[in-house]
Amino acid sequence: MIDLRSDTVTKPTEEMRKASYEAKVGDDVYGEDPTVTLLEEKAAKILGKESALFVTSGTQGNQIAVLTHCRPGNEILLEQESHIFYYESGAVAALAGVQTRTIPGINGIMNPKDVEAAIRGEDQHFPETGLICIENTHNRAGGAVVPVTNMAEIYEIAQHHSIPVHVDGARLFNAAASSGIPIEEFTKHCDTVQICLSKGLGAPVGSIIAGPNEFIKRARKWRKRLGGGLRQVGIIAAPGLLALTKMTERLSEDHANAMFLAEGLRNILSLKIVNSVDTNIVVMDVAELDLNAEQFVQALRDKGVLAVTFGPTLVRLTTHYDVNREDMERVITSIDEIVNARK
Amino acid sequence: MIDLRSDTVTKPTEEMRKASYEAKVGDDVYGEDPTVTLLEEKAAKILGKESALFVTSGTQGNQIAVLTHCRPGNEILLEQESHIFYYESGAVAALAGVQTRTIPGINGIMNPKDVEAAIRGEDQHFPETGLICIENTHNRAGGAVVPVTNMAEIYEIAQHHSIPVHVDGARLFNAAASSGIPIEEFTKHCDTVQICLSKGLGAPVGSIIAGPNEFIKRARKWRKRLGGGLRQVGIIAAPGLLALTKMTERLSEDHANAMFLAEGLRNILSLKIVNSVDTNIVVMDVAELDLNAEQFVQALRDKGVLAVTFGPTLVRLTTHYDVNREDMERVITSIDEIVNARK
Amino acid sequence: MIDLRSDTVTKPTEEMRKASYEAKVGDDVYGEDPTVTLLEEKAAKILGKESALFVTSGTQGNQIAVLTHCRPGNEILLEQESHIFYYESGAVAALAGVQTRTIPGINGIMNPKDVEAAIRGEDQHFPETGLICIENTHNRAGGAVVPVTNMAEIYEIAQHHSIPVHVDGARLFNAAASSGIPIEEFTKHCDTVQICLSKGLGAPVGSIIAGPNEFIKRARKWRKRLGGGLRQVGIIAAPGLLALTKMTERLSEDHANAMFLAEGLRNILSLKIVNSVDTNIVVMDVAELDLNAEQFVQALRDKGVLAVTFGPTLVRLTTHYDVNREDMERVITSIDEIVNARK
Amino acid sequence: MIDLRSDTVTKPTEEMRKASYEAKVGDDVYGEDPTVTLLEEKAAKILGKESALFVTSGTQGNQIAVLTHCRPGNEILLEQESHIFYYESGAVAALAGVQTRTIPGINGIMNPKDVEAAIRGEDQHFPETGLICIENTHNRAGGAVVPVTNMAEIYEIAQHHSIPVHVDGARLFNAAASSGIPIEEFTKHCDTVQICLSKGLGAPVGSIIAGPNEFIKRARKWRKRLGGGLRQVGIIAAPGLLALTKMTERLSEDHANAMFLAEGLRNILSLKIVNSVDTNIVVMDVAELDLNAEQFVQALRDKGVLAVTFGPTLVRLTTHYDVNREDMERVITSIDEIVNARK
Repeated sequence: MIDLRSDTVTKPTEEMRKASYEAKVGDDVYGEDPTVTLLEEKAAKILGKESALFVTSGTQGNQIAVLTHCRPGNEILLEQESHIFYYESGAVAALAGVQTRTIPGINGIMNPKDVEAAIRGEDQHFPETGLICIENTHNRAGGAVVPVTNMAEIYEIAQHHSIPVHVDGARLFNAAASSGIPIEEFTKHCDTVQICLSKGLGAPVGSIIAGPNEFIKRARKWRKRLGGGLRQVGIIAAPGLLALTKMTERLSEDHANAMFLAEGLRNILSLKIVNSVDTNIVVMDVAELDLNAEQFVQALRDKGVLAVTFGPTLVRLTTHYDVNREDMERVITSIDEIVNARK
Repeated sequence: MIDLRSDTVTKPTEEMRKASYEAKVGDDVYGEDPTVTLLEEKAAKILGKESALFVTSGTQGNQIAVLTHCRPGNEILLEQESHIFYYESGAVAALAGVQTRTIPGINGIMNPKDVEAAIRGEDQHFPETGLICIENTHNRAGGAVVPVTNMAEIYEIAQHHSIPVHVDGARLFNAAASSGIPIEEFTKHCDTVQICLSKGLGAPVGSIIAGPNEFIKRARKWRKRLGGGLRQVGIIAAPGLLALTKMTERLSEDHANAMFLAEGLRNILSLKIVNSVDTNIVVMDVAELDLNAEQFVQALRDKGVLAVTFGPTLVRLTTHYDVNREDMERVITSIDEIVNARK
Repeated sequence: MIDLRSDTVTKPTEEMRKASYEAKVGDDVYGEDPTVTLLEEKAAKILGKESALFVTSGTQGNQIAVLTHCRPGNEILLEQESHIFYYESGAVAALAGVQTRTIPGINGIMNPKDVEAAIRGEDQHFPETGLICIENTHNRAGGAVVPVTNMAEIYEIAQHHSIPVHVDGARLFNAAASSGIPIEEFTKHCDTVQICLSKGLGAPVGSIIAGPNEFIKRARKWRKRLGGGLRQVGIIAAPGLLALTKMTERLSEDHANAMFLAEGLRNILSLKIVNSVDTNIVVMDVAELDLNAEQFVQALRDKGVLAVTFGPTLVRLTTHYDVNREDMERVITSIDEIVNARK
Repeated sequence: MIDLRSDTVTKPTEEMRKASYEAKVGDDVYGEDPTVTLLEEKAAKILGKESALFVTSGTQGNQIAVLTHCRPGNEILLEQESHIFYYESGAVAALAGVQTRTIPGINGIMNPKDVEAAIRGEDQHFPETGLICIENTHNRAGGAVVPVTNMAEIYEIAQHHSIPVHVDGARLFNAAASSGIPIEEFTKHCDTVQICLSKGLGAPVGSIIAGPNEFIKRARKWRKRLGGGLRQVGIIAAPGLLALTKMTERLSEDHANAMFLAEGLRNILSLKIVNSVDTNIVVMDVAELDLNAEQFVQALRDKGVLAVTFGPTLVRLTTHYDVNREDMERVITSIDEIVNARK
């Protein structure tokens, strides 16, 4: 099976397993796990923030950020198909009591003017705008990179209105790798950021949130409330540390594979690549085949390739370090066969 | 001063004050206020529902509906500029823990296909779609009437997916008066409905929510939690009863005045009427005058006319029973003067 | 029927109805109702606070206070049978996300040492203590007066720990009347206070919350979210104003009636008065009659007297301005008959 | 250092580390991690429930249980010093909107009559009683075992009132080991149960909640909202599986060590053991030494022994598999020296 459902499916490397096996551990609720402490310090430095906190998932990191920045009755601004709105089970409303005001973007990129226009004025009929969220790369926009300049413009507006900015950077290292711009050039245009160790970077479990000391202190308590305060966490922090320090460089291989795959698919008539393929995600529209996405995904599975639906006629393919160029060739061939069989 | 800011500014009539003065009252927390009981029974009958409940405002009625229909982690579908989303201070998230998924409508009318497409499937990443809300008439669409056929289509979809429908009918009697269709033709396409006694109908305070017995029973408890369980409420229910039974017929006068006003304004070059003027609201764009909405509203105030801003260059004028045809003529003259002074 | 169920059952006086009939009104959401403005100014002055806000019930006033003082994750300290904990349908948790830490009091009076011991230290396992609530008079302690000295001690502790104090003073004027101490001597030992216009003071509807300007400003928005932002509210503020200014003096009559009633009942063997009868409430235990409270209340009803159960064998009788000394004599006789019939 | 602060401080065994190293893993959000699936199946069987779910901590398990069983406006009944109330940062109110009604127990054991008396009747002033929680063993009662008979009585009452029962069994295996009664004798008297793999059982991270299929299905979604949906979770599930299957038998060693320790301390005058030492926890009062708990803990630390404060003059010592009989002797000696030095 070639598994292109997500970059979350990667298995930990031998080196990661070994690091876990040998990890120095302690009770992190007492602040005594040396491995997670090292990971948090390292992450803060790489992301250019004062402090960082290990959390068990990207969703947990994003939720803690919203809980810490906002209070009930606030409204947050975010792109209309962003993960926090689309894929987190309504948790920002359920847990933080915060209303989502979604802004339609192009390729996941919000127009700064739209963001500014959506900020609420002072009026007892209005929630207070409590947070602006940017997702980079943007998952539902097919891994599109939000440019540093766009982030800078939005951050300037936010600061002018004294509203914090949080970046859902689950795949922010992909943005950095794709654009060739250091990650701290991205993260300097926000107050807080969440990055995943478990997607393209390959750790089995975990994410990081980073921001000011005072923010992280309060975030730690919200993590405890969500049940994310762990004990001998070094056992998962150790592979996370390898992910953070050794795996970011190789993301461009995934991007090259995705581009190679997209190139191959573009040659197949009646298929349409609908995203910009900036990073490790390819989204194709199968409508012209008179198949819906579910049927296409099933056909692919029969050929030994796993993918996910991404809309009624959209299919998403994601590259990662457990697949290689040869796999891409096989995927192209398989899809070609499916398409030919439809004629 | 001619006050066209809203139909909420109407003062109670002499008859309403008298009814209040003479009202039979009791302690409604014990269910012993005969006047409110009569009002609730009458309202349920008029709206074609099993039961009704007096609440202190449209916002309270809508919030109680959401709290009773939904639970945290649910998502509600509603038009992108609907009152519940736009003007209720983020309360559905703050109080009910419910995420808002907004759908762009045309003239406040959601395309039933868009509604169906926004219903979430079963997936642990997704909130459950817990309620669909329709606003009729639609305030920010300038009092536009949502046709019965549109409501019927959405309700059919909702029932197919076992999702309840709530109508924010703060001005539903205006929709009925404008279309000449009895109100129960509208309300039969929803599970619950909220109507305001205090807008065009002229009561000093109060709204009604109506729906199934079981719903109203649970709604009563949420009303108590919000502090809406009152004592000798007959004193405000009495004018509400007059509003409900004697004031609905005359709404067409307000509509005629609004149309007269719009007609007059359409003759003024460089002004643009941007809504369809279905009922008692006129929205005009003043952008061509090189004035923003706030400046225009101030200029109007200087001429003795009160209006409200409705966007950066939009101004809203609302008719009601405290203004008459002569007032409309004076307003047209005043606006004409302002426009001429700009040349 | 002699109705001693609660002082909430009082009907508005002729003078109150007239005031309502003649009230100057306006749209209070625009801040233009002169009667409610006058009421709020008067109330702030009487209660010795910067600002005051009209709300529709005591529950709404208390909930708004908690929502404004606290945020989710906070814990509030309050007496174990206080109204906010016992009778407000769990709203502080449901709406404000706040945990209740209850403290057993004696006669509704919390030991300041117990209050201090319950304040949480800094620890990620602990909620932050966000508010201390005092109820005065204490309903479930049978209208017991919490002494000014006790309030002063608790307030000092609270200030030392930078924790605000809110007083649920639904019947605080009863405490003042009973003790002969001016109400501002009580209210100076708290940050915010709620008083009811609709209990002993006899207004048909309404309560007041008072506190610092900044607090009231934010409270106004929470009132809006709860649906308590009303329109021509003068119609209910007018009787409220009379309640506040003309009805407080006469509360001692209710207290004298309650004491007279208790005295009479103490002479009846096998009945036990279990509260201190400081104000207008008498609580008796009927256990020795081999009747439970519900049976006793039914027997009383058969004799034309209404009361409420207050525990498995406890019955509460409450005096107010709609009952007089003669009524008390009839109640004593009725109870005497019931007791004799049991022998 | 002899670390008796908690049984959470235990380091994973060599066998656990190896199991983690070799664990078969997959993406558990897709339900494809074979190790966690095996752990969940095993746990469900051992606990006598239909299904089980891996969560990252005891707090997360308890919170998910409350979120799944209840809805805002509910009230839960639980012992007044139970972990859910005392040590979970107010999360049940903050996340689930649920009010806590605490019941004073003796040795952590609630009187079933008190539980029944606290169940709310039908009344709009009352929250609905939505859940009863039992903690076994009871942490703040010094690891006291709640007898099966007590659980059975409470469960019978709960079922009679159609209220579910959740057991916070973070240390339920200690209860089983101490009483010699199989764990399923305990768990049959509840609907759902949470047990910790990371306390006495020694896993680095993780807990289990178990209950009916339908409950676990909905719990899985709440886990996702809290950010507890993990990826290659086998890496921590593998040691958890060993904890569950190989470590429960040896808990009686910890109990024997605790009893040995308590025996030794009882011989020291001016110290008082205040708990019943049913399991692995010893709580002593140091008041007679004219030391507060913090000072005593510091003095112990200077002697190479770690303990935690448990009240102003209370100190808690907890045994676990990283300490042995010899350590106990050294601890007794150290405490003896501290006490002697005070004379």
